[in-house]
Amino acid sequence: MNFSSELIERAVEAFAGLPGIGKKTALRLVLHMISRDETEVSDFAEAITAMKKHLKSCSVCHNLSDNDLCRICEDPSRDPKVICVVEDVRDVMAIENTGYFKGRYHILGGIIKPIDGIGPEQLNIDSLVNRIKEGKAKEIIMAISPTIEGETTIFYLSKQMEGFDVSISNIARGISFGGELQYADETTLGRSIMARTPYTLKK
Amino acid sequence: MNFSSELIERAVEAFAGLPGIGKKTALRLVLHMISRDETEVSDFAEAITAMKKHLKSCSVCHNLSDNDLCRICEDPSRDPKVICVVEDVRDVMAIENTGYFKGRYHILGGIIKPIDGIGPEQLNIDSLVNRIKEGKAKEIIMAISPTIEGETTIFYLSKQMEGFDVSISNIARGISFGGELQYADETTLGRSIMARTPYTLKK
Repeated sequence: MNFSSELIERAVEAFAGLPGIGKKTALRLVLHMISRDETEVSDFAEAITAMKKHLKSCSVCHNLSDNDLCRICEDPSRDPKVICVVEDVRDVMAIENTGYFKGRYHILGGIIKPIDGIGPEQLNIDSLVNRIKEGKAKEIIMAISPTIEGETTIFYLSKQMEGFDVSISNIARGISFGGELQYADETTLGRSIMARTPYTLKK
Repeated sequence: MNFSSELIERAVEAFAGLPGIGKKTALRLVLHMISRDETEVSDFAEAITAMKKHLKSCSVCHNLSDNDLCRICEDPSRDPKVICVVEDVRDVMAIENTGYFKGRYHILGGIIKPIDGIGPEQLNIDSLVNRIKEGKAKEIIMAISPTIEGETTIFYLSKQMEGFDVSISNIARGISFGGELQYADETTLGRSIMARTPYTLKK
């Protein structure tokens, strides 16, 4: 693309470096920025640099946090003995959005993927085992994607937790609510038949 | 959405304030930012604030510019006597991308739209007439959208230019190259038949 200004060119390239944003969208965003007030634009820039500069990792659960402890680990109303183990901070947000879970989290920072060179030592596994060792957990919920790598990670984690007084569970797997049977994949459908749950008549 | 951090919340809201970016996309962009180096993030922020702060309007053609004169008005290889009149800076970029035009531009900054309260006095019309008065133009090309407001603007401009020694032309209108006749609107198709051009056999 042809720009009459180097300043615009630089700004367009900055936006076009973001995932999923092409040159045309970047230009649209830049032209929008030009039409805004200077304070609005500097607020935008400040929000991003401040986040990058001050964002910490929670010292307990490795969630993204403003302080040493994240909002969830700080919250006394949440059960500290129930720990939901997830791969990524996005999973925490997804589970929090459901509003169903009132325990704490532990973010692994990935799953075991030998093909990408990610072994257990690259993940936040020691700190999880320490939380259990210190008697800070009575239940571990594995909320990890049901892929081969996910299953491997769950297997490895449960091996590490052997001998400690914790119960380990997996999140339920089966047909999605609102999902149609005929479109479900075979493994999900087959396993959901094997793992059928008793039906109780609602009164 | 539920964020464990106010810093993230602010950054997501900053991105979500951009046109065409929802909360989920904003979150994806923010998480991408988190994974980048601090210098990369500050470069990004700096590119945007510097653009907003230092960007000028070209004193001749009103194009966005780094200096008092834009790159196009500065370029001695471009014909200063042929002025292409456009609505918006995006039109300049679109025409520049074709590589066909080697003259200069004049950006009106909009078109006459009484319904939105935009009259001739809100547009860069006086400076265009001055360029013509000072004998700086011999040809004016109207590259303005063929809408009712566009036609009104072209009519108003040509009235202002009456009595000066300039030729005025419209960009060609008709069926797009590669466009299919059956999908063209009636006005375009009808006018393109009336404004047919003689066919010359290529040798």
